Amino acid sequence: MNEETPGPAARRVRLVVAYNGEPFHGFAISAGVSTVAGTLTDALRQITGHAVVLTGAGRTDAGVHGWGQVVTFDLPADREINRDLVRIAKSLNSMLEPHIVIRDAAWVAPDFDARFSALWRHYRYRVLNTPTGNPFEAATSWHVTTPLDLRAMQLASDAFIGEHDFSAFCRRPKLSGPSKDAPEPSMARRVISARWSDAGSGILHFEIRANAFCQQMVRSIVGTLVEVGMHRRRAGEMTGILRSGSRAMAGHIAPPHGLCLMEVGYPT
Amino acid sequence: MNEETPGPAARRVRLVVAYNGEPFHGFAISAGVSTVAGTLTDALRQITGHAVVLTGAGRTDAGVHGWGQVVTFDLPADREINRDLVRIAKSLNSMLEPHIVIRDAAWVAPDFDARFSALWRHYRYRVLNTPTGNPFEAATSWHVTTPLDLRAMQLASDAFIGEHDFSAFCRRPKLSGPSKDAPEPSMARRVISARWSDAGSGILHFEIRANAFCQQMVRSIVGTLVEVGMHRRRAGEMTGILRSGSRAMAGHIAPPHGLCLMEVGYPT
Repeated sequence: MNEETPGPAARRVRLVVAYNGEPFHGFAISAGVSTVAGTLTDALRQITGHAVVLTGAGRTDAGVHGWGQVVTFDLPADREINRDLVRIAKSLNSMLEPHIVIRDAAWVAPDFDARFSALWRHYRYRVLNTPTGNPFEAATSWHVTTPLDLRAMQLASDAFIGEHDFSAFCRRPKLSGPSKDAPEPSMARRVISARWSDAGSGILHFEIRANAFCQQMVRSIVGTLVEVGMHRRRAGEMTGILRSGSRAMAGHIAPPHGLCLMEVGYPT
Repeated sequence: MNEETPGPAARRVRLVVAYNGEPFHGFAISAGVSTVAGTLTDALRQITGHAVVLTGAGRTDAGVHGWGQVVTFDLPADREINRDLVRIAKSLNSMLEPHIVIRDAAWVAPDFDARFSALWRHYRYRVLNTPTGNPFEAATSWHVTTPLDLRAMQLASDAFIGEHDFSAFCRRPKLSGPSKDAPEPSMARRVISARWSDAGSGILHFEIRANAFCQQMVRSIVGTLVEVGMHRRRAGEMTGILRSGSRAMAGHIAPPHGLCLMEVGYPT
């Protein structure tokens, strides 16, 4: 943690936040339900005396976990506590553990933005591929009892690497109000890597890194790849699904609790 | 799983059961609260039509987890389902997952008893030894923020190996009714191995194997060893505490959720 006191022009804070998505209705603030950003904002208000506005690197859906979520916000240095980030992080942890943990806190330049400064996001999806379940993996993995063909899933994953229009694997954002006449948002994303690995004890990891993700993209890709692993689809179908741009062509969406935002990359 | 249909004299069943202790008030049946044995008994009644009486290898306390708990019970083969263990295990899993999972089911000899046939029990205690918490370890480890001296804890652990009177590390069973005049139960137990290891990512494992354990014995030993790891006690004190036979001499009891019954050993 950077313990330097900020100058008057350097009051932006960056937190690295881990959370168990199970008790939350997603990351983003939403009226009437408990969310990660809402819980953090409430705690920060109590500690700092300010109604801070959080920006998160990834808007994880309900049930999705975070290990390396990054958030930024501005903090007027009017109170003594607001110049002591180590104390703020400790207070947050004592209020929010065990569901939310602040892993790091630092002062950053005023133009650093958790969302727009990010170069890439890395998500991990965990599949428990055993005939019977595991009570200790239930909250953080998708239990698939059919034996999966890891090699076929890896072959199919290679098709996603590079820049593609991911319309077939994404939930289209709802347009309402003035934005109705706005141009359709682009679903073009650049996947840097997509790799399956055997983590032992029947756990399979799918690691995917991209410049950005559209909504439900990882879960939709995983749902389709698991159908390949079950030999219900061929690995060679992926390019055709991407080109179709049609959600109906892709597989079922994998459940949220297997997914975790692991890390966000920024310019160094 | 042993799929053989039992003969008339071989109706005893052995299950290997994993469970997340968090939602349960311990293993043993207790009136008015949800327990692992109670939940299993209810499910077995629904599936088999019998009010079976379960024997467990270890009576884990409230909050303690199981990975290799062993239970035995008798099943009259009056209905067809009661001759098909694979189906019984599948039905149990579909009713009880994700909190309870039947890992194995087998027919055993009528004199096999989960408790009295056991030669040893192996428990693991997990400590998360990092400055900040981890939302994914919170349910299965004790978070200790003070850096622990693993070597001192190992040195202290060696004192427990062999046969000792563990009165100083055990909760005395409450005596009531006719057993008031019975002789005090023996607290002599034989510890076969006791070892600390670094499991990575700040997780420490304490593995202890003994012929049997008295109540709260592992948690009491771990609580005392962690005080050694914090340099609040010396490793050399353990033998003196054992000899004192006094609970007041031992350390605080470690919380239940770090503890898991891993495996039970039987004659082969």
